[in-house]
Amino acid sequence: MRVINFNAGPAGLPLPALERAREELLDFQGSGMSIMEHSHRGKDFEAVLQETFGLLTGLLAIPDTHQVLFMQGGASQQFAQVPMNFLTQEDSADYLMTGVWSEKALEEARYYGKARIAGSSMNKDGRYTRIPRSEELQLDPDAHYVHMTSNNTIYGTQWHTFPEVGGVPLVADMSSDLLWKPIDVSRFSFIYAGAQKNVGPSGIVIVVVAKEFMAKGRKDIPKIFRYSTYAENNSMYNTPPTFAIYLCRNVLSWIKGVGGLAQLEKWNREKAELLYAAMDKHADFYRGPVEKQSRSYMNVVFRLPSEELDDAFVSEAKKAGMVGLKGHRSAGGIRVSLYNAVTVDNVKALVAFMGEFLKKHG
Amino acid sequence: MRVINFNAGPAGLPLPALERAREELLDFQGSGMSIMEHSHRGKDFEAVLQETFGLLTGLLAIPDTHQVLFMQGGASQQFAQVPMNFLTQEDSADYLMTGVWSEKALEEARYYGKARIAGSSMNKDGRYTRIPRSEELQLDPDAHYVHMTSNNTIYGTQWHTFPEVGGVPLVADMSSDLLWKPIDVSRFSFIYAGAQKNVGPSGIVIVVVAKEFMAKGRKDIPKIFRYSTYAENNSMYNTPPTFAIYLCRNVLSWIKGVGGLAQLEKWNREKAELLYAAMDKHADFYRGPVEKQSRSYMNVVFRLPSEELDDAFVSEAKKAGMVGLKGHRSAGGIRVSLYNAVTVDNVKALVAFMGEFLKKHG
Repeated sequence: MRVINFNAGPAGLPLPALERAREELLDFQGSGMSIMEHSHRGKDFEAVLQETFGLLTGLLAIPDTHQVLFMQGGASQQFAQVPMNFLTQEDSADYLMTGVWSEKALEEARYYGKARIAGSSMNKDGRYTRIPRSEELQLDPDAHYVHMTSNNTIYGTQWHTFPEVGGVPLVADMSSDLLWKPIDVSRFSFIYAGAQKNVGPSGIVIVVVAKEFMAKGRKDIPKIFRYSTYAENNSMYNTPPTFAIYLCRNVLSWIKGVGGLAQLEKWNREKAELLYAAMDKHADFYRGPVEKQSRSYMNVVFRLPSEELDDAFVSEAKKAGMVGLKGHRSAGGIRVSLYNAVTVDNVKALVAFMGEFLKKHG
Repeated sequence: MRVINFNAGPAGLPLPALERAREELLDFQGSGMSIMEHSHRGKDFEAVLQETFGLLTGLLAIPDTHQVLFMQGGASQQFAQVPMNFLTQEDSADYLMTGVWSEKALEEARYYGKARIAGSSMNKDGRYTRIPRSEELQLDPDAHYVHMTSNNTIYGTQWHTFPEVGGVPLVADMSSDLLWKPIDVSRFSFIYAGAQKNVGPSGIVIVVVAKEFMAKGRKDIPKIFRYSTYAENNSMYNTPPTFAIYLCRNVLSWIKGVGGLAQLEKWNREKAELLYAAMDKHADFYRGPVEKQSRSYMNVVFRLPSEELDDAFVSEAKKAGMVGLKGHRSAGGIRVSLYNAVTVDNVKALVAFMGEFLKKHG
């Protein structure tokens, strides 16, 4: 029996994508071997790779000005690799601070250049419960780029209007909300995302980079760290994580089959709105710390009146077949992640459970 | 029908390891989800991770002086990450040149420090058909480390006696022969290996590092690039490639089940000896370029009298259910990779085919 999986990442995957993987795990399309046993230089994997590029390009309507790269090392490696490629010790980049992941990105950037805080929504207690307002940003027009985290998994906040950064290249860590809805890719010079929320398993990073921006990358760093190396070699400079790419293919193919990002957005909005409505109805019991206009559609966080109740909520939900509800170890409370594989019915089941739980403990 | 897979990597995996993965792909041990849908911080994945560390430590008899790390980015990233951690522009490291991968490692190291060639077996034509002899090495006692490639997939050569490097730390890229037989880990300060030959799928790198050596690593590089970060966080500083680790677990567990590395060595020696004997019997037809004492037990290379015959060999073998025999695009000819998942019977089938092919075309 499959459980209802609200994990924050690695997250649940659409069942059809997994079933397809199981079906052909020992024999990919009559080739007599698993796709993970194929050479990455062979025709079979090459076809999977091209299909995956094509699906992602189609779903996100990525223009010709941009290129998709498949990389490794997680978003955490991108925190360092972006400044390694685009800064020298003399250059500066602007960082917009909205949570733990922005902080880590800033910290790694400082090994390569001047990384300055151009806006932050940090509260006095060191936490973040909202996205900075546009009038709070102090952008440097000479910055080499502006870095932002589009969705904050730990604090449950999300940028609903991307910041206006003038002519400065905008770089976004979209690890936790890429593919939640259609976006205008042309507004970004660089998008990166660990796949393990909305796209596939852990162990693969999706990069969408503007070719013009990439061309400005440093040439005096090792080949393996240059984005241009991945671009010139079609993400096959060295052996890529072939099975992870194949699993992304299965997920992207499922997304296309159900109607693409327009359909996902409809479901994702319905899911989050159902859940926030349930919280707001009993706001003294299901206490959401996040300012309403900054609420995330991907990660919904709340606290119950006591830590004991938080724990009871998690353990009783588990008995009811719902897992992954414990808040991040640094934030506590409850976190409900509503990535693409979570269905509207899954959320309805959770909302019903919340009603029961309130009756019993409220 | 499964084919006989002689791929050079990604390579075939032991069928029981894949069957186990298929069996629990949708529901790992009754948890109601795939292991790839589990949080990396949860109990289920934590148990898999610990089991994988334990299996590797047991199979390789890794002493307490060393630690296993699971990383990403392939061996190619290690080419850069090792010198990033252990060199400054003032320091020097020695590189032993035995093929294409040594050359790439050397090239990346030069971005971080002085990397000198301390021995090379390159022929006048730029190819390598043997391992350097000990009297050909000119080691610098002040080098920060000596780097070697234990097995050369493209040229089909292998170090059968590891070089004597005095007190200098020995660093080895063992991507294509880790786990082929027991080794004395204590001779190495740093071992790294892309998993996709003998250990698992692509997308995961095994590192075995001496703690004393690791402690000398630079602290002025980004956290994500420091080996100490992986060591201190049990390879969970950021989300690891969970499914790739799980698949390694399945392979390592299979290795232990069949008798460990002593048994694998027996099989691997038998496989390579069968194949080399078949070549040597008709050395004018199956032309091995490699000096006998440098021959690899993992990758056996030969050429037929013409390129047309090479092509015919590959395509007729494919009809007979054997794939992966085409030589590397930079070397041509035939390459037979004999990693752990290849059975003695697989090699016997190939040897029989070689006899038939000779009769028909010789």
